[in-house]
Amino acid sequence: MASSSITLSQAILSSSSIARHGSSQPTTTSSLSLPTFSGLKSTTTTTSRRRIATVPTTTPRHSVPRASATVETLEKTTDTALVEKSVNTIRFLAIDAVEKANSGHPGLPMGCAPMGHILYDEVMRYNPKNPFWFNRDRFVLSAGHGCMLQYALLHLAGYDSVQEEDLKGFRQWGSKTPGHPENFETLGVEVTTGPLGQGICNAVGLALAEKHLAARYNKPDSEIVDHYTYCILGDGCQMEGISNEACSLAGHWGLGKLIAFYDDNHISIDGDTEIAFTENVDTRFEGLGWHVIWVKNGNTGYDEIRAAIKEAKAVKDKPTLIKVTTTIGYGSPNKANSYSVHGSALGAKEVDATRKNLGWPYEPFHVPEDVKKHWSRHASEGAALEAEWNAKFAEYEKKYLEEAAELKSIITGELPSGWEKALPTYTPESPADATRNLSQQNLNALAKVLPGLLGGSADLASSNMTLLKMFGDFQKNTPEERNVRFGVREHSMGAICNGIALHSPGLIPYCATFFVFTDYMRAAIRISALSEARVIYVMTHDSIGLGEDGPTHQPIEHLASFRAMPNILMLRPADGNETAGAYKVAVLNRKRPSILALSRQKLPQLPGTSIEGVEKGGYIISDNSSGNKPDVILLGTGSELEIAAKAADELRKEGKTVRVVSFVSWELFEEQSDEYKESVLPASVTARVSIEAGSTFGWHKIVGQKGKAIGIDRFGASAPAGKIYKEFGITAEAVIAAAKEVS
Amino acid sequence: MASSSITLSQAILSSSSIARHGSSQPTTTSSLSLPTFSGLKSTTTTTSRRRIATVPTTTPRHSVPRASATVETLEKTTDTALVEKSVNTIRFLAIDAVEKANSGHPGLPMGCAPMGHILYDEVMRYNPKNPFWFNRDRFVLSAGHGCMLQYALLHLAGYDSVQEEDLKGFRQWGSKTPGHPENFETLGVEVTTGPLGQGICNAVGLALAEKHLAARYNKPDSEIVDHYTYCILGDGCQMEGISNEACSLAGHWGLGKLIAFYDDNHISIDGDTEIAFTENVDTRFEGLGWHVIWVKNGNTGYDEIRAAIKEAKAVKDKPTLIKVTTTIGYGSPNKANSYSVHGSALGAKEVDATRKNLGWPYEPFHVPEDVKKHWSRHASEGAALEAEWNAKFAEYEKKYLEEAAELKSIITGELPSGWEKALPTYTPESPADATRNLSQQNLNALAKVLPGLLGGSADLASSNMTLLKMFGDFQKNTPEERNVRFGVREHSMGAICNGIALHSPGLIPYCATFFVFTDYMRAAIRISALSEARVIYVMTHDSIGLGEDGPTHQPIEHLASFRAMPNILMLRPADGNETAGAYKVAVLNRKRPSILALSRQKLPQLPGTSIEGVEKGGYIISDNSSGNKPDVILLGTGSELEIAAKAADELRKEGKTVRVVSFVSWELFEEQSDEYKESVLPASVTARVSIEAGSTFGWHKIVGQKGKAIGIDRFGASAPAGKIYKEFGITAEAVIAAAKEVS
Repeated sequence: MASSSITLSQAILSSSSIARHGSSQPTTTSSLSLPTFSGLKSTTTTTSRRRIATVPTTTPRHSVPRASATVETLEKTTDTALVEKSVNTIRFLAIDAVEKANSGHPGLPMGCAPMGHILYDEVMRYNPKNPFWFNRDRFVLSAGHGCMLQYALLHLAGYDSVQEEDLKGFRQWGSKTPGHPENFETLGVEVTTGPLGQGICNAVGLALAEKHLAARYNKPDSEIVDHYTYCILGDGCQMEGISNEACSLAGHWGLGKLIAFYDDNHISIDGDTEIAFTENVDTRFEGLGWHVIWVKNGNTGYDEIRAAIKEAKAVKDKPTLIKVTTTIGYGSPNKANSYSVHGSALGAKEVDATRKNLGWPYEPFHVPEDVKKHWSRHASEGAALEAEWNAKFAEYEKKYLEEAAELKSIITGELPSGWEKALPTYTPESPADATRNLSQQNLNALAKVLPGLLGGSADLASSNMTLLKMFGDFQKNTPEERNVRFGVREHSMGAICNGIALHSPGLIPYCATFFVFTDYMRAAIRISALSEARVIYVMTHDSIGLGEDGPTHQPIEHLASFRAMPNILMLRPADGNETAGAYKVAVLNRKRPSILALSRQKLPQLPGTSIEGVEKGGYIISDNSSGNKPDVILLGTGSELEIAAKAADELRKEGKTVRVVSFVSWELFEEQSDEYKESVLPASVTARVSIEAGSTFGWHKIVGQKGKAIGIDRFGASAPAGKIYKEFGITAEAVIAAAKEVS
Repeated sequence: MASSSITLSQAILSSSSIARHGSSQPTTTSSLSLPTFSGLKSTTTTTSRRRIATVPTTTPRHSVPRASATVETLEKTTDTALVEKSVNTIRFLAIDAVEKANSGHPGLPMGCAPMGHILYDEVMRYNPKNPFWFNRDRFVLSAGHGCMLQYALLHLAGYDSVQEEDLKGFRQWGSKTPGHPENFETLGVEVTTGPLGQGICNAVGLALAEKHLAARYNKPDSEIVDHYTYCILGDGCQMEGISNEACSLAGHWGLGKLIAFYDDNHISIDGDTEIAFTENVDTRFEGLGWHVIWVKNGNTGYDEIRAAIKEAKAVKDKPTLIKVTTTIGYGSPNKANSYSVHGSALGAKEVDATRKNLGWPYEPFHVPEDVKKHWSRHASEGAALEAEWNAKFAEYEKKYLEEAAELKSIITGELPSGWEKALPTYTPESPADATRNLSQQNLNALAKVLPGLLGGSADLASSNMTLLKMFGDFQKNTPEERNVRFGVREHSMGAICNGIALHSPGLIPYCATFFVFTDYMRAAIRISALSEARVIYVMTHDSIGLGEDGPTHQPIEHLASFRAMPNILMLRPADGNETAGAYKVAVLNRKRPSILALSRQKLPQLPGTSIEGVEKGGYIISDNSSGNKPDVILLGTGSELEIAAKAADELRKEGKTVRVVSFVSWELFEEQSDEYKESVLPASVTARVSIEAGSTFGWHKIVGQKGKAIGIDRFGASAPAGKIYKEFGITAEAVIAAAKEVS
């Protein structure tokens, strides 16, 4: 790992080059404007972090005590008329963009513009010219449909990603302003939201990451990690179970720097929330261990909002929910406070009426000069904030070389050179073991060399084998530890890991449960894939091989269901070497998540398996043929590769030439050259048999219409594993019979 | 619909014949013992509902006021020594069964035996010889891993489904006592549980069904529908977000006859709940609108438990959570109160120690004579309860002929004859429309003829088009209505519908959201499939055709992911006739759920589509070839069938013979005869092109290696729908080009 300070800065910038998976991606990639300052080399330390003051204080930032800084950021110095003008600018940018697209959600931005303004203009610390600045405050719009709020704020704050033409291209092909916030499209958007409830969980993950890194790297003389996570969530997010899961954890962990604004507008798509949502949210959050504040006038109560944030920051041992009662579509004389303003354009007539009502004489998309001028300071202030931090980091690095190097690798995502040498290797003589146990060997080996690796299980650590033995539990009072205890909360576990992964390029979260319970977290896994979050899903008990727990616990369709999902690697290793290979692949794929399907039952270490083989997705583990013309090709994955190998032994005894192919990852194999593919699965050999203890759905593409796919196209059963394998015909005998049939 | 009263009784019995989907099912079906009384013909009205009294009172049941009956059932008349002996019998049946299987979860049954005993012996009304008796109290073990509790109780209560040999066959191949409770294996088990949190949601569904049917059919002089729903849930269920969703709804709906026992034992698999679950559950439930009671001594506090149930019954406008603090593994001197007793056999030594500790001198699986004798009254009492109700029903039927006939059809599941005539039909001249709108036409037409049809959407009623126009909302004070407002709670929506479906064979719940959000509810959908619950999933916005909302909202892999799932019908209708066909199929498949993928965008009514075609899964909608030898076969589903048809028109103009096949349901096509399949997709015609706006995963089985599958193997994009279709190549031009390539 390089240690010069310039490298860090460069790496941060390079991480901003967003390359989208899939060559047919419609949007072009954004190239980040280089900031005009020199990153870590800067020595500017005299700029204040004050956001509102127009002149810098003379106190260097790094000597300002934390508490007073907190107060400073909340002082109200901008005059209210200008604030209101800025707030209305936000409202009309949203109204106009939705109107032009004739599609979108104007209601939330109109109601939440005041809190949005205060956050981005008065409270949050960020550098619009470097959206990747490590120590920025994070913002998550959990109610992602209201994304025009975020786009308007990014635009005003000076992010290059959202120019006027981007606002005009809202929801259009190739624009930077898609229908829901997407981190991979729009710089400044931290996470992809829209599916409700996910964002608040991402925010919990971001706040967890901050608390963890702060605990590991801050020193009594240097708070090098120190930012807040803000989130806006709506009634919909509150109704989703996933948010309750994550908020229960946030309370448990005491994430004091997480501040969530609950846009309490009483309207959801079907109408008044009275029809389906009459619980007392405040009471629930108190039960979850949060500090709860109610801002009764979210429409114009700027001071109320400011006071609430100030109070929230003063509470350091609990996350805070600020319930902000707003009027959805505030300002629209005929549609405010109704569901009709939630998800449709206002219509020309109502836009006019709203302009009149709010006294807004401007053309569509116009930002008044004084508003523009007011916001323009964020570029320089942000640059100064970053420069100040860079200077602080330079100081830190001098004193704490080792910690600085580690933190840098987390910030940049650069892997320590030679990290992969830590991966364990196995020989056929190594003892048979369950791949879940082999997975634990890998996790523990990697945790020593990858400072960003942390994670845990949804209350199945001792079954999933995910404990990092050299670390304790990440808890409220031990946040420096790396074993995360998620409780029985699979869905939020996935979404929290998305937040962790997207906090810093070098954080590598893993999470675990039984493979079948990916059903509980599928929406979060899909967002890992979509938002290019490198989360490692450690999914054990991956087939009927788990035995007695029965069909509710036995995955059948799950491998197929993830093979069909874009931008995710579905890996099913067969033994120790393949498990190590799966981890290597998972760590190296920075822009996509991986799922490792692992066995509960013991498996032998097979001759021919290798890390390199796994990297190709499908490869030959044994073959007694020549000239790329075996009589039959047997394909297997995971625990059934052993069965394929056994069947091959028998068939060879009978004089057949047999190739055994481990098909550990379909996606990786698909990405190989045609030449390589032909070398493994020659078109001329149509005698192919696959075996996998799961649905045969999809296998016909591989085995062809003359081949045979052995699998399980029904639900499982409760019995000892060996018995089920036999009864379901997942046996070497079945492979042999099929091989004879097709060859 | 037959109106004689004997028919109802017969039908109830016939519904008990459990035919399992899939011919290779390991377990044999259970035949229900006929009760010794004559069902509805019985005139016995003098038997009391009192559960504890050994002599019947002279007051006819139907004149006992509700309130006093409630109190009666909770009087303590069994002496405590015998109760304790019964409780220990339950504990040791669980200990012994887990020990023999060397697999299972003894901890919960040992801790929950007291509440289990009181429920099944003193409180619940049921007839062990007819587990399908309509007016029985329902019990759900949400913490399904503790299923030996339920099996022990069913055994003691006299259910024929769980004999001594079944207990000895716990978790073995073909037994009636699988590793988690499965309604399709074990009579007396209401719903399939194990995946945590599902059961409490099922219980909410069961209680909703009761409240709804009671509101529709009860009369001032006859409470014909009148039962409680009991549930035991553990810490794991409480952590899952799904349970918070459903409990929020239960509070909102004021389900006063839902009584849930929270087994508060402070232990989950990873150890003390302190590590991940420190929220205040009581406060949360108060926020959710529940009545909360705390039983501090759940291990031996029988009177405390009884008093809590009494109090719960007295609260009629809120569901009740009884937090029962127990010791997991109570009685085990060395393993109680630790995670080691949660999910493993105690081991011979600890079993002995536990026997000594609890003073249990008996052999494994022994039920002491006095305990057996004590429980033996449930057969006759249960028969009397049912007979009493049957008599009441006979009276009811005399007065309320129409209501009785409707209720009967709900109880028996018999569809009104000719119901399918209500399905709308369309001609190519009918106006183009989105299938989501056509779906609403079907729902509204069916609601008139199917009294058991009820349902709604997860806050997208106006997008999913699911409102039944002739009905109002099911709400706390209007429970007779049939539009259910689930709020943004997809996961619990599915699980609640499972409960509704399994309450009565004639209830047909439907539920709706955007197709992509099946990801939120997949675990519940899988349980619909596994537990044979006829839920109709109305999933709109089924492709990139939804346009601007972008990739978070555009399903890609979802069709494939459900085609891979066992025992579920994935239907993607193309127009009005196919939508009607899909509903026909969904209603007729009593033992499997259906998912209808429906378009947001308008689609033309295509020539050649039909209800009958849909019933075959795949069928020819047009063909200009002869001799079953078209030049090329084009296959499409849903919104892309139109594109296939257009391409065919063009190709025919060029002189090709082209067959267009609608492939609306792969599962149904797979079930057709080989002859039929050959008539649609002749093996000799390898020139095949499929088009579907989703993943191509799986299509190669249909189009073969010489064919071509047009689809989308990447995430979607935010733009107007037409633009995305064009950019992604989901066009007639692409089909034409592919057809030329392959033919």
